[in-house]
Parts: sequence; structure tokens; C-alpha cells
Amino acid sequence: MDRYLELVERTLDEVLPRGRPERFSEAMRYAVGTGGKRLRPVICLASAEAAGGKAEDARYPAAAIELLHNYTLVHDDLPAMDNDIERRGKPSVWAKFGEANAILAGDALQALAFRTAARAPRNVAEIVAVLGEKGVGVVQGQVEDIGSDKDVPYVYEHKTADLFVAAAAMGGYAAGADAGTIETLKEFALNLGLAFQYEDDLLDGDYTYSKEETERLARETTRRAVEALARLKGDTSFLRELANKLVGRRV
Amino acid sequence: MDRYLELVERTLDEVLPRGRPERFSEAMRYAVGTGGKRLRPVICLASAEAAGGKAEDARYPAAAIELLHNYTLVHDDLPAMDNDIERRGKPSVWAKFGEANAILAGDALQALAFRTAARAPRNVAEIVAVLGEKGVGVVQGQVEDIGSDKDVPYVYEHKTADLFVAAAAMGGYAAGADAGTIETLKEFALNLGLAFQYEDDLLDGDYTYSKEETERLARETTRRAVEALARLKGDTSFLRELANKLVGRRV
Repeated sequence: MDRYLELVERTLDEVLPRGRPERFSEAMRYAVGTGGKRLRPVICLASAEAAGGKAEDARYPAAAIELLHNYTLVHDDLPAMDNDIERRGKPSVWAKFGEANAILAGDALQALAFRTAARAPRNVAEIVAVLGEKGVGVVQGQVEDIGSDKDVPYVYEHKTADLFVAAAAMGGYAAGADAGTIETLKEFALNLGLAFQYEDDLLDGDYTYSKEETERLARETTRRAVEALARLKGDTSFLRELANKLVGRRV
Repeated sequence: MDRYLELVERTLDEVLPRGRPERFSEAMRYAVGTGGKRLRPVICLASAEAAGGKAEDARYPAAAIELLHNYTLVHDDLPAMDNDIERRGKPSVWAKFGEANAILAGDALQALAFRTAARAPRNVAEIVAVLGEKGVGVVQGQVEDIGSDKDVPYVYEHKTADLFVAAAAMGGYAAGADAGTIETLKEFALNLGLAFQYEDDLLDGDYTYSKEETERLARETTRRAVEALARLKGDTSFLRELANKLVGRRV
């Protein structure tokens, strides 16, 4: 884990801008922060290894998924969206830098995400395609979530799981995985993302389904994620442990 | 010109979503519109031909630059930015679909731009890299423009010319151009973008420099753009005519 996190932080620091406009570079770095779980990039790196490749080969896609995830948070916090003045115990980007700078910092983080993904050592077309597909999907999931009469499975799949799926698939592509391995990684990540969302519902006590049904769904999707891992040829011990740790975060 | 425009409209219609959330797909299509000059994608297609290749090979990068350009307009119109309720004589996206949907439609258009660029037939890593670089640059130019004590040459280069440069370079890459040809296309597009901005200042009567100095700069940058074209091996007649027509739009 420490090895993955060091690689993520180093790559983010390498690709984030330092130059002019200085205050704006500062806003972009503030939005991405340092430390934290870095769940999506860690999944990307570990997926490269689970596919039999090297984590190092997936470091730019890993940084890319974290940049993209963080832009969505910056925009979600805006007054016209969730109107949150705090994120991770600190002022949100718009509360600290102003609303216009927060819109623009999110926009630049998304462009930087794709620029960074394009630095992968192989399969760049596939990597950018899946990041683009899921980058549209995560926004569609958010739109459905804030709309009236929302379709909850659609929201969970897209708003939450899409970026997990992109992370795992990009890690596989960066490692040179074949099409079957990519599909298995996506199946793993979809179920992990859904399990993560059910656990969030349990943590928040905010149930779409009953508590018992949500617990059952969390166990079921975790089981499916772990079963998918068993079909991969590389080292999956880290991802298996991660999946088992996500469920039961509340205890 | 008609041939280029038909290819742009057809490709945009192909890549823009139709599915759920339906109202959101409608907002994305509304933002991109139909018709119009489509200046940046046309430059992309014509640059592929100027490099000795086929316009058809650049149709996805051409659609990508138009999607990216239109997301910047959607976000520029927001209340926290320029607060414009009209664009091209119709309600702006936020005025018609609400502020949250306009933020999100812009976000999805940017992701779709990169996904579309990744469908180019060759040199996808280079194409996405230059779109990502200039996609960050255009935002930095906007930040500088709305800041105090702005650096006007920096704003013109980034806010205006960056997307022209990306359009021309992507067209060259999609045609399989060599590094020297890409540099020449970028030099052409940087000067064309600056000329376009000086002409805009003359049209608006909004001078950073004097009227005479702005006219001189418009002629000078147009001359440099046309000189760059003369070094290309493909058919540059369309781009030469375009450059000469842009200057003197006011008469």
C-alpha cells in the first residue's frame, strides 16, 4: 500500500502545474490535496499487477483517475450543486478560491487528467477511450442523482462505480492485458464500486433499500468482486484484501 | 467548405449521446448546436489535407475540438462567470436548462471531446496530449483574463489561440505528419488565432492597443500564418483563403 501511495503522490506532484497563473496552480493543487486514501489510483496500480504487469506502467493512468475524481468533487461542492463549504475538514475549493476559480480549476483538472492518461507506455487509445466513456458516465450518474424520480441502480453504477471500472481497466491496459483480462478487471471493479456504495449507505444510515437488504447486497457484490479476481493470472492478494476491508468499514 | 462542414456535423451527431438521462443529452446537443462556422474543426480537417493526408482521417479530432470549444462557452456563460443569458441569439445553456445542468453538460462535453479524439486512426497519444495541453491552456488563459492586472499577450495566446493550435496539430497528427510539419501547422495556427483575436478587437472597437497598432498586428500575424502555409507539402489553398478572409472581416 505504501509503495502504491508513494507512486501516486509522486506522479500527481509531477503532473500538476506550478507556473502561472500561480494562484490558479495553487487552486488545482489544493483541490487534489495530498495524502488520503487515493482509492481509485491504488486500484489502477494494483490492477496492473493483477493482470501480470508492473504498477509503474500504470502510474500516469492512476494519477489521471485521481485528477478526474477530484474535478468531480470540486464541481459537486459548487453553490449551484451541493453548496458545500467544507470538504475533508477544510474549506471547499469555491469557498477558498471563489466560484469562478472553482469552476475553472475543475475544468483544468479534467483536461490534465486526459493529458496525463495519454502518457501511459502502451494502449493509449484504449486507456483514453475508457476514461472518456466513464468520464461521461460519472456525470450522467450525477445528473440522474439530482433529478426527480431517480433510478437508483443507474445512479450507483454510473456515479459511483464508473470511475472504479475506468481505474481497473486502465491499469490492465497499461500492463498490456488481453481483452478477457480487461473484462474480468471491469467485472471486479463494477462489483467493488457497488459494494463501496452500499457500505456508504450503511455508514450514513441512508437506505434506499432496507438495512438488511443493503447488507446482503454489500456482501453479494463483494463476493462477486473477489470471485472475478480469482480468474486473473497476476498477484491479486492486495485487491482481495481491499475488497474484504471495504465491506464492514462500519464495524 | 461545404464538404468540411458536412463531415463535422455528421461526426458531431454520431458521437453526441441520445440516451438517458434524455433531458441531459438534449442539453449537450443544444450546447453544441448545429450549423455555424465550425471554425476550429474546419481548421483541423484542412490541416490534415495541408499535411498531405485525408480530411476524413481527422474527423474525430475535428469533432473533439468543437466539443471542447463548446464546453468552454457553456461554462463561460455561467452566472459566476460572464452571467450571459444569451448565446448566438438563443438562451444560454444555463438559462435554458438551469445552472447545475449547465455545469454538468460542460463537464460531460469535455470528457466526450477526449473520448472522441481517441478514435483517430493513428497517433492517438500525440493527439490526446496536444488536446490536453491546450485544454489546460485555454482555461489558464481564461483565468488570467478574469484576474486583475492581466497579461494581454498571455491571454491572447492561451484563451484564443490554444484551441486553434490544437486543431491544426491534431489534423496533422491524424494525417500521419512528421514533426517538422506539425511545428509548421502550429506556427500557422498560433498566428491565425492571434489575427482572429486582433480582428475581434477591431470588430468590437475594444482596443488593448491603439486601432492603428491593432490593424498592424492583425496584418502582421496573418502574413506570418500565410508564410507558414507555404512550407507545407499538401493543398493549403483553403487555409490561405481562410486566413486572408479572417482579416478584414470588419469591412
